[in-house]
Amino acid sequence: MWPESVAVVHGRKRLTWRAFRDRCRQLADGLLRAGIGRGDTVSVLLPNIPEMLECHYGVPMAGAVLNPLNTRLQDREIAFILGHCRAKALIVDSEFADLARRALGHLEDPPSVIVVEDSEHPEARGDTEIRGATRYVDVLAAGSVEFQWTPPADEWDTISVLYTSGTVGNPKGVVFQHRGAYLNTVGQALVTGMRADTSYLWTLPMFHCNGWCFTWALAIVGGRHVCLRNVLPERVFRLAVDERVNMLCGAPTVLTMLIHAPESARRRFEQRCDVYTGGAPPPAAVIEGMEELGFSVTHLYGLTETFGPATVGVIQDEWTGLSLTERARRMARQGVPYPTVGDLLVADPDSLVPVPADGETVGEILIRGNTVMKGYLDNPEATREAFRGGWFHSGDLAVVHQDGYVEVRDRAKDIIISGGENISSIEVEDVLHAHPAVMEAAVVGRAHPKWGERPVAFVTPTPGVKPPAEHDLRAFCRDRLAGYKVPDTFVFGDLPKTSTGKVRKTELRERAAGNGAEEPSSES
Amino acid sequence: MWPESVAVVHGRKRLTWRAFRDRCRQLADGLLRAGIGRGDTVSVLLPNIPEMLECHYGVPMAGAVLNPLNTRLQDREIAFILGHCRAKALIVDSEFADLARRALGHLEDPPSVIVVEDSEHPEARGDTEIRGATRYVDVLAAGSVEFQWTPPADEWDTISVLYTSGTVGNPKGVVFQHRGAYLNTVGQALVTGMRADTSYLWTLPMFHCNGWCFTWALAIVGGRHVCLRNVLPERVFRLAVDERVNMLCGAPTVLTMLIHAPESARRRFEQRCDVYTGGAPPPAAVIEGMEELGFSVTHLYGLTETFGPATVGVIQDEWTGLSLTERARRMARQGVPYPTVGDLLVADPDSLVPVPADGETVGEILIRGNTVMKGYLDNPEATREAFRGGWFHSGDLAVVHQDGYVEVRDRAKDIIISGGENISSIEVEDVLHAHPAVMEAAVVGRAHPKWGERPVAFVTPTPGVKPPAEHDLRAFCRDRLAGYKVPDTFVFGDLPKTSTGKVRKTELRERAAGNGAEEPSSES
Repeated sequence: MWPESVAVVHGRKRLTWRAFRDRCRQLADGLLRAGIGRGDTVSVLLPNIPEMLECHYGVPMAGAVLNPLNTRLQDREIAFILGHCRAKALIVDSEFADLARRALGHLEDPPSVIVVEDSEHPEARGDTEIRGATRYVDVLAAGSVEFQWTPPADEWDTISVLYTSGTVGNPKGVVFQHRGAYLNTVGQALVTGMRADTSYLWTLPMFHCNGWCFTWALAIVGGRHVCLRNVLPERVFRLAVDERVNMLCGAPTVLTMLIHAPESARRRFEQRCDVYTGGAPPPAAVIEGMEELGFSVTHLYGLTETFGPATVGVIQDEWTGLSLTERARRMARQGVPYPTVGDLLVADPDSLVPVPADGETVGEILIRGNTVMKGYLDNPEATREAFRGGWFHSGDLAVVHQDGYVEVRDRAKDIIISGGENISSIEVEDVLHAHPAVMEAAVVGRAHPKWGERPVAFVTPTPGVKPPAEHDLRAFCRDRLAGYKVPDTFVFGDLPKTSTGKVRKTELRERAAGNGAEEPSSES
Repeated sequence: MWPESVAVVHGRKRLTWRAFRDRCRQLADGLLRAGIGRGDTVSVLLPNIPEMLECHYGVPMAGAVLNPLNTRLQDREIAFILGHCRAKALIVDSEFADLARRALGHLEDPPSVIVVEDSEHPEARGDTEIRGATRYVDVLAAGSVEFQWTPPADEWDTISVLYTSGTVGNPKGVVFQHRGAYLNTVGQALVTGMRADTSYLWTLPMFHCNGWCFTWALAIVGGRHVCLRNVLPERVFRLAVDERVNMLCGAPTVLTMLIHAPESARRRFEQRCDVYTGGAPPPAAVIEGMEELGFSVTHLYGLTETFGPATVGVIQDEWTGLSLTERARRMARQGVPYPTVGDLLVADPDSLVPVPADGETVGEILIRGNTVMKGYLDNPEATREAFRGGWFHSGDLAVVHQDGYVEVRDRAKDIIISGGENISSIEVEDVLHAHPAVMEAAVVGRAHPKWGERPVAFVTPTPGVKPPAEHDLRAFCRDRLAGYKVPDTFVFGDLPKTSTGKVRKTELRERAAGNGAEEPSSES
């Protein structure tokens, strides 16, 4: 539809949709000529650069399966994934060549390696050589722009495999089928109202659920990909101005980074810019801070197992008149299912009886339909467990409000049980986020001889503000929460995070356990 | 997603999406209670009123098949269709009660009748009573708003049957499956860039390919249906202002009617209003006239067999600088396939070899994929013929331009063969449309003893302008066409049309044959 429009921008590089299509065809043909066959897996260890987008098209065009790797993983984790999904090739950015070399060193039968060199970022090139590696440009040069690709024989064939960061045990390979990827792509385009004039900035890693399927959604409307190798606030603001960016995605921590960017890095832009955030609910301060910068925030919710977002906190017109606090409270809810989601229930996970829409009764979010993964790769036990009763079990505990909006109360495993009472870690975190001196907060449980568990709060103070005192925070919580929900202990410092911006609560639980040994409980 | 937003506007009546959903559930339940079962067919003879939209949801929710009838058919044609699709119920607007009563009189085993009375148009109510008929409001009242509908057991189940106007023989029932309807609905939403703020005016009959699937597309984005019982220019302009209409569809004849509306009927509106036209290519004068009124025209092309539009004359940015003539020439082309169309070829219909993209070589438009009908109801012969070689044969002859845009040269059956040369009736019509005194023109072949066939032109003069003389038009054509393409005869007057605005060329061919007997051939 738009052969001469710009499809991909990266630095000074610009590719039209025609040129992009040609390169994807060349990649597909080049991979086939290099011995990749139908059903083979191609792993990619790439930042948000044009080559990563090309892999999202060229690899499936070759009939192969795409396996995007999180660039922040350790060598042993990468080695595990490459072995588990039996990767036949690894396409790696030269910045990560050293990481890849170390990962490959752990493997008996390593995949062949194709190295990408980012022409726009010569400074990012590592000096590690991988023996026997081919250059990406040479793979493309060997492929024909006339290559005629064939669609998958079956729409339930696998298009990609993505490994969940898995806080316990080895990561699990989430298997995406073409049908689900197509429908979730359509869902993204419809929910965001994407059009041919959409200029989309890649602040969300493409290795995360194939960039929530936005990698594919832009093509269905003829919008524009604006690549971004590193998410630096100064670059985000500059591209917002230069490329008239009007859409981007990211975890709330990315938005926090923009809000706290130094004045010198900020730029004013004229266009409306829609920001879709997920991974964690956006606190009121983040919504307000983003609005002040000129962004409009919408909250999405989903999991890798649902191809990324499956619900949207649709902003209703009648919320306009509400106070920021009230509006933010509604916007932070996970919302209503995408039009492309088959069924979504909040229900008792065993009886499947839905909870009433009372905003109080907690159930598990259960999802079924085309936009749910096929299963975990070579892991029938975990697959069976995840799909018991015929529904995908999200592991998220939620309520349904009177207006039908779903709100997550906690991860099933993050709930703190103290003296027989459930404490939602999110509820306590929300209170802490409302404190002006708190930039971020995470609450976990710690074993307690009398109460079973007690909450511990980890807090990152707001930069440039007087750091909060522990007794201040305790009093602030006590004014707003039942006494048993007030954390026993407050620990200050940075929060450990996954590459997608989620707080690593497992690590905090370990720290809290250690902390508990040092400090007496101040239970009140 | 938008339960409290307005879904349907009709006069002073307004239904939110919640209220609309409740009414659709009631209709489904009411139909089931009235004895309609899964797989039964419900015919509807309704104008573009809310009840027609409700039928598009309530009938499938009951597991039944919708059969929208063209309200301009004759009683015998309606009787044929009701009998052919074995309609179990007929939902009819009281304005058409007399027509329905006459149609039912032709049937041995007539369907049960449900009568709709349009609360907003009491003047449109006929005074015919149909014996034993139920009132639509009573069917709804008998149904529950809590009715739990189940989706189709198989996505290839039938959702609706639409009869093609068929210029020869009995009409054929085009069978739509749920899967195709869903995908074409998604296609309409994506191609038009429809969003929650879309206010869509119903100038296109909903009985035409389920309103090109716009009946369903508005729901997927939460837009607004603005109903319109009769397409009167004064009402169209008033609603454009009052309801801030920003999208509508219609055949070029509808657009011509707006352009030639009296000054007193016209209104200026501030919003951008996108107009999608199909059924015939929009002449330059129509594009220009509509732009002057504040509308932006895009040309769509498709057939009932493809659920309505399958290609779109995407307007490329770089056309902005072109002259109106050149821009209109490009815009009038049928364009490129929808993203939801599987495959579209312009090829030799027997060998399936595609034509080169040279803008000259003529082939037939062939389409395959999900958005093509299942087949013609109880007509295996016509189905086999339409799908020979595994592709749906459109019967439209076209070329492919260098930029990939498809342009229809003629219906296979409308091509005129004179002295062994093909004359495209569309080419001659385009020349006539360029004459300022010609509002509409249609060219057909007439048998000729020497040449086989010769073209005859039927012309509707532009109102308020000096009527063109035959010798003027002949000279005008001779300046712009090869001699053998210049019509022998020019006949002035209104053109006979189908309810969807297509010129009835079969009727013109009959007239031309009669004409020929009276007048000597003026072949030059």
